[in-house]
Amino acid sequence: MIAALAGGVGAARLLRGLVRVVPPAEVTAVVNTGDDTVLHGLVICPDLDSVTYTLAGLNDEERGWGRRQESWVVMDALGRLGGETWFRLGDLDLATHLYRTQRRAEGVALSTVTTEIAGALGVAAHLVPVTDDELRTRVTLADGPEVDFQEYFVRHHHAVAVASVRFDGAERCTPAPGVADALERADALVVCPSNPIVSIGPLLAVPGIAERLRRRRHDVVAVSPIVAGAALRGPADRLMRELGHEPSVVGVARMYAPLVGTLVVDEADATRAAEVEDLGVRCVVAPTVMHSVDDAARLAAVVLDTVAGLRAGEGPAR
Amino acid sequence: MIAALAGGVGAARLLRGLVRVVPPAEVTAVVNTGDDTVLHGLVICPDLDSVTYTLAGLNDEERGWGRRQESWVVMDALGRLGGETWFRLGDLDLATHLYRTQRRAEGVALSTVTTEIAGALGVAAHLVPVTDDELRTRVTLADGPEVDFQEYFVRHHHAVAVASVRFDGAERCTPAPGVADALERADALVVCPSNPIVSIGPLLAVPGIAERLRRRRHDVVAVSPIVAGAALRGPADRLMRELGHEPSVVGVARMYAPLVGTLVVDEADATRAAEVEDLGVRCVVAPTVMHSVDDAARLAAVVLDTVAGLRAGEGPAR
Repeated sequence: MIAALAGGVGAARLLRGLVRVVPPAEVTAVVNTGDDTVLHGLVICPDLDSVTYTLAGLNDEERGWGRRQESWVVMDALGRLGGETWFRLGDLDLATHLYRTQRRAEGVALSTVTTEIAGALGVAAHLVPVTDDELRTRVTLADGPEVDFQEYFVRHHHAVAVASVRFDGAERCTPAPGVADALERADALVVCPSNPIVSIGPLLAVPGIAERLRRRRHDVVAVSPIVAGAALRGPADRLMRELGHEPSVVGVARMYAPLVGTLVVDEADATRAAEVEDLGVRCVVAPTVMHSVDDAARLAAVVLDTVAGLRAGEGPAR
Repeated sequence: MIAALAGGVGAARLLRGLVRVVPPAEVTAVVNTGDDTVLHGLVICPDLDSVTYTLAGLNDEERGWGRRQESWVVMDALGRLGGETWFRLGDLDLATHLYRTQRRAEGVALSTVTTEIAGALGVAAHLVPVTDDELRTRVTLADGPEVDFQEYFVRHHHAVAVASVRFDGAERCTPAPGVADALERADALVVCPSNPIVSIGPLLAVPGIAERLRRRRHDVVAVSPIVAGAALRGPADRLMRELGHEPSVVGVARMYAPLVGTLVVDEADATRAAEVEDLGVRCVVAPTVMHSVDDAARLAAVVLDTVAGLRAGEGPAR
């Protein structure tokens, strides 16, 4: 059994590889909900949807988000009405939001709705929102206002300086049903190559999650989302720098060190493996850039080999 | 200046004729909101939309509701997710609901949002919801449960017997801005050929509306939605019968008599004009079935001629 802490696209890619090398039913992805928002009255869960669509094989590879063979009839008509269209919602994607919003209005928990959607789309892995409670990532911009995550991320194209990030409501959240159990029972805990601050950060802010990782630190393997000092996509490098972290595998290792026993870094960062290990984090060097599903499966295999090695009592690689 | 009390499609057709024969800016349609509902988290106002789309020339004539050149990508995808699709929402139509829901969530009154949508779609007539407050038509079915109007109307295809109808929240509603003024200042008040019970009924249940009609009864002209004992569309005849009214122009005249000075009935009902007038309601006989915009314009002209005659001090036609 594998439990994975997941953000959006980077996590989705690794998970797609993971379900190639282990039976999907043995994978539980605990997914970030701090990015969730309500727009046009619709409950939108970008990370859950990225993971769901990707595992269902319905994601748009080229665009990098949303569904493939997507159409934009509603958004175009909304634009003609003068509505807000900075958050592009495709027609197929909208169906997911309508479904979720209706079910939530009926009082059904987000975790249950997530299972329903994943099931309808043919996803065999277990997808669980980290919490059924309200968790909202809020970003204070360097030039003043605090905004919702999506306003920062989509509306401002994450091209503005950030002063701080907080996870509103986190202290009142409890892990969704199945999350604590998955983290306890998994043979390995994988921290996906997601933004450490705004994708993994919200998960760790939910009481009980970080504590469980800390206790099982030996079994926790993270994949660095930073390669050669840069995020493959999104603002992880920029955010790390702005919030006082070195945007490198060493910076990632420093952030994760209390919770993560092993960090997988890209071959481009092989020269920094020693620095990672100096922080008490085992460092595994492997190709981590996933251009294809095959790349993802190879990376997943590295993660699983690492886990197998750890369970066989292997010491640090160094 | 003309003020019209309007339900959905029948009203929309007459209004489309009316704006052919008087400047649209001189027409104010006060529209039923008792049919409004929330589905998938979206605020849906079927009568406001029918009137808006029709006056904008965007309505689907053949289907009889919704927008023409409509597509159904979202609904089809929602169906594949196992979502509720009994209330069909086209992609173009959904844009209206997204826009309205977002604006309502921002605290903007329904009447303002209605003006915005009508303006964006090029409607020059004034469209006003009867109230900005919550008004919900509730239908008790003969076999027991009380349901929302749309559940009766769409889900059950209004093919089930009704025991009673009430307008939930009506007593707490105030007329939307502009409604009282339009009813006071209009040269004529037109009651459109809409269902007297579930389309015009909710308007009259809003405190102040019926009272204003009563005071101006001489200037109030209704067009019968019942022709030769049957509704042209929808369940008006059936509902009237089930709730103890004769489903005929005489039944309509009896319901409207306290508020309406003149009833326009179809030529098919000419033989019943005397019975209508016996109720103290002036009866005008004219073709009332609107197959085309020209038909609608001719009917609108009859209504306006009637008004002009009334203002010139003409007595009862009989």
